Amino acid sequence: MTTTDLLTRRERLLGTGTPLFYQDAVNIVRGEGVWLFDPDERRYLDMYNNVPCVGHCHPHVVEAMHQQASTLNVHSRYLHEGVLDYAERLTNQHAEELASVVFTCTGTEANEVAMSMARIATGGRGIICTDAAYHGNSAEVGKLTRARDGDSEIRAIPYPQRYRPLREGISEPELTDLYLSKVRTAIDSFAANNIPFAGMLVCPILANEGLPDIPKGFMPKAAEMVRDAGGLFITDEVQAGFCRTGSWWGYEVMDFVPDIVTMGKPMGNGLPLAGTAARTELVDTFRDRKRYFNTFASSPLQAAVGMAVLDVIEAENLRENVTRVGDYLRSELTKLQPHCPPMAEVRGYGLFIGLEWVSDRDTKTPDRDGATIFVNRLKDKGFLIGSAGSLGNVLKIRPPLVFSREHADLFLTAFAEIVENTYGTSA
Amino acid sequence: MTTTDLLTRRERLLGTGTPLFYQDAVNIVRGEGVWLFDPDERRYLDMYNNVPCVGHCHPHVVEAMHQQASTLNVHSRYLHEGVLDYAERLTNQHAEELASVVFTCTGTEANEVAMSMARIATGGRGIICTDAAYHGNSAEVGKLTRARDGDSEIRAIPYPQRYRPLREGISEPELTDLYLSKVRTAIDSFAANNIPFAGMLVCPILANEGLPDIPKGFMPKAAEMVRDAGGLFITDEVQAGFCRTGSWWGYEVMDFVPDIVTMGKPMGNGLPLAGTAARTELVDTFRDRKRYFNTFASSPLQAAVGMAVLDVIEAENLRENVTRVGDYLRSELTKLQPHCPPMAEVRGYGLFIGLEWVSDRDTKTPDRDGATIFVNRLKDKGFLIGSAGSLGNVLKIRPPLVFSREHADLFLTAFAEIVENTYGTSA
Repeated sequence: MTTTDLLTRRERLLGTGTPLFYQDAVNIVRGEGVWLFDPDERRYLDMYNNVPCVGHCHPHVVEAMHQQASTLNVHSRYLHEGVLDYAERLTNQHAEELASVVFTCTGTEANEVAMSMARIATGGRGIICTDAAYHGNSAEVGKLTRARDGDSEIRAIPYPQRYRPLREGISEPELTDLYLSKVRTAIDSFAANNIPFAGMLVCPILANEGLPDIPKGFMPKAAEMVRDAGGLFITDEVQAGFCRTGSWWGYEVMDFVPDIVTMGKPMGNGLPLAGTAARTELVDTFRDRKRYFNTFASSPLQAAVGMAVLDVIEAENLRENVTRVGDYLRSELTKLQPHCPPMAEVRGYGLFIGLEWVSDRDTKTPDRDGATIFVNRLKDKGFLIGSAGSLGNVLKIRPPLVFSREHADLFLTAFAEIVENTYGTSA
Repeated sequence: MTTTDLLTRRERLLGTGTPLFYQDAVNIVRGEGVWLFDPDERRYLDMYNNVPCVGHCHPHVVEAMHQQASTLNVHSRYLHEGVLDYAERLTNQHAEELASVVFTCTGTEANEVAMSMARIATGGRGIICTDAAYHGNSAEVGKLTRARDGDSEIRAIPYPQRYRPLREGISEPELTDLYLSKVRTAIDSFAANNIPFAGMLVCPILANEGLPDIPKGFMPKAAEMVRDAGGLFITDEVQAGFCRTGSWWGYEVMDFVPDIVTMGKPMGNGLPLAGTAARTELVDTFRDRKRYFNTFASSPLQAAVGMAVLDVIEAENLRENVTRVGDYLRSELTKLQPHCPPMAEVRGYGLFIGLEWVSDRDTKTPDRDGATIFVNRLKDKGFLIGSAGSLGNVLKIRPPLVFSREHADLFLTAFAEIVENTYGTSA
C-alpha cells in the first residue's frame, strides 16, 4: 500500500488531522535498538523517541512481557507479589520519602492522580504551572496546557529561562528572584480570589517549554515557597525521568526533592505504564478518599515489563552512557555553532538536547519555519528528531538511552552536511 | 511470602485502602482460560473477569503481542498499516455510521474523548447520566460517578428499572414514559440554567446500576429526545461491548444506534487498549479542535493485540457461545430461585448476569451484607464472582466469554450447595 493510500485510509478511519510527523510522513514497520525501518528496509536513526528508552524491541523487555503475558495478566484487586516487587524497586530508586506509588496507564492519568492527591491533602484547589506546559490530554490536566482557558483554579507563571528572560541585564540570582516573585504573585492571586492553594506542578527540566537554562536555584526555592504557602510541589518526570538527563530524575538535576512525582513514557518501554510516587501519607489519604481503581494498572504485566526496563538500565549502565554520549553530542554541536547561524543555543541535559533556532541571533527572533525545514532535511537523510518549545523553534533531540558515540557521529556528520549545503559554512 | 506479609507490604507500597476483593484476599499467580491459580495451585473458576474476554493468557493473543513487541512498538505519528487494518476491522463491526475511531489506553480516556467530542460538536456543555453510573476515574469523567458532586454541567436521572420503579402499579409503556420525562426534565433544567446541552452518556445495559430490566424502548426513545434537543447520545460499551451480551454491542440489545460509543476493558484481553468510535464528521471535528495525541495509543502493539482478540472471538464462535451458555446459566439459576429466598431476580444478557439479593422479597429490602457473604462463600469454594449495583446488593457474574456449559454446571452445583447449607432448602 502506497503512502498516499495509507494517508487516505488514515484520514477516513482515524479522522482528518490525526497528528503525523514530517512533511512527508514516514511509514515505519520495524524497530531495533536505535533504528527504525520503513517497508523498503531504509533505516532511520531514531533520535526522537524516549518511550523505547532501552531501545526498540529490547529482547529482555520483550521476553519479560511474553513470559508474564503467558502466565498471568489480571487487575489489581487480587494480591500479586510481582507488583509489590516492582513498586519496591521503583520507589527505592527515588528519594527516601517518596516511598509509595499509585500505578496508572498513562502520564495523563498519573497527573490526574497527582493533582487530585495534592488537592485532597491540602484541601486546596489552586494549582500553579508554567505558561508553556503540557502535562496531558484529559479535561482536568489539559487545563495546564499553556493555561489558555483561563481556568480560575490554574495560574500560569512565565516559565523561567535565561535566553529570553523576563528582564534583560540583571544577574542570574536577580533573575531567579524575579521568576520566584511570579510564583508569589500566583499564590497571592489565589488567596485574593478565595481559592485555597493546592500546589505547583512542573516538569523539572521544562521540557515542553523548550529545555531552557533555568536560573539557578529556581526549582528548590519555588518548592520552598509553595510549601510555606501550604501547597505541595509536584514534578512531572514523564519526560525527565528514568535517566534521560544522566540523573535518575529531573528533580535530582535541580537538587531538591518534590512531594509528589509523576512518571510515564519510558517506564514500560512502550507498554502503557505510568504512575505517581509520593510520601506514603499522601498516597494513603488519596486512597482513603478516592478508592482509586484503574483496570489495567498495577497489573502483573505492567510490573514485569517495568521491572525488565529497570534491569536493562542497570545492566547496560545506561545512566552513565547518557552522561557520556550526551556530553559528547552537546559539545560537538556547540562546536558547530559558528558555522550554523540559526543555532543560537545548545541546551539540555544528558540525552535530551534542545537547539534554539533563530533567524537573527541579535534579536533572538525565533525561526519556527527554519526549524521545521531543518528537521525535515534531517529526516530525508535518515535522522529522526522533532521540534518543541513555547515558540515551536527548538530542535528536540531525545534518542533512546542506548544511543552511542558512534550514532552521535553519524548524526553530527549529517548535521554538518546540511549546515554546509544550507549556509555554505563548512565546519 | 505469606498473605499477611503481602498485605503489609502492599499497604506500605501502594497505600492503605488500595482496593482488594474478598474478605480474605486471594493471591493469584497464574491464569489459563477461565481458571486462576494461587501459589499452591489451588484453582478458582473465574466468573468475574470480563477483561480477559477470550480467556486468560490465550495463546493466539499472547503470540500476537510477542510478535509485534519483537517487531515494532511506537507512537502513532508515523504511518503504520496494522493500526489502520485494526481500525477498519473494528469499525466494520459497528453500525455503518460509526466509521471512525480515536484510540486511547483506558475506558476513562475513551469517555474523556467522548465527552469532549460531544461538547465540541454541539457547542454544549451539559451532559445527562444516571444516578448510579461509573464511567471512569478522571476528574471530568468522575463527575458522572453517582453524580454526587452536583456539578452544574451534569444532570443525573434515576436509572430506568422495573424492579424498584419510580412509580408502582403502572404499565411498562407508562414506566418508559415516566423515565423519559426525567430526561426531558434534565434537558429543560440545562436550558433554564443557560447551560447549552451536549448530550447523554450511559452504559446501554446499565451494568454498574445493577443490570436492571430497562423499561422497553427507553434507550432509543431517550436517544431521539436527546437528538431533538440538539445533543448527542453516547453509549459506554466498556462493559457491554465485544459480545458480552450475546450481541456485539449493548446498543444492539437496545435496538438503536448511538452517535458515539466508547470501548475498553475486553478490547485488548488485558493490554491497555480502549477507544471512541463515532460518525466520521464528529471525529474530524474533534481532531481539528483538539489535536488529540495519546503516547501509547494507536500503536502497532495495541493494533496487533486488538486484532488477535477479534480473531479469537470469530474463530471460536464466542458470540454464539455467550448466548448459549448465558441462556443456560440464567435459566438454571432461575430454577434455583424457589430454594434461595434472597435471590429475588435473575437478570442480565448473555454472560453478564445480575442476581438481585434481598432480605425480604415482599418489601424488596436490599441485602448488601448477605450478598457479600454469599460472594465470599463462593470464593471459598473456588468460584470468583463480585457484587455491584446502586445498592451493592446485586451479585455480578461476568466470566470470560470462553465459559462453557461444563463450567456453568460446576458453578451451579456449588451455588446449590451453599443455598442448601444456608437455607436448608435443597433444589
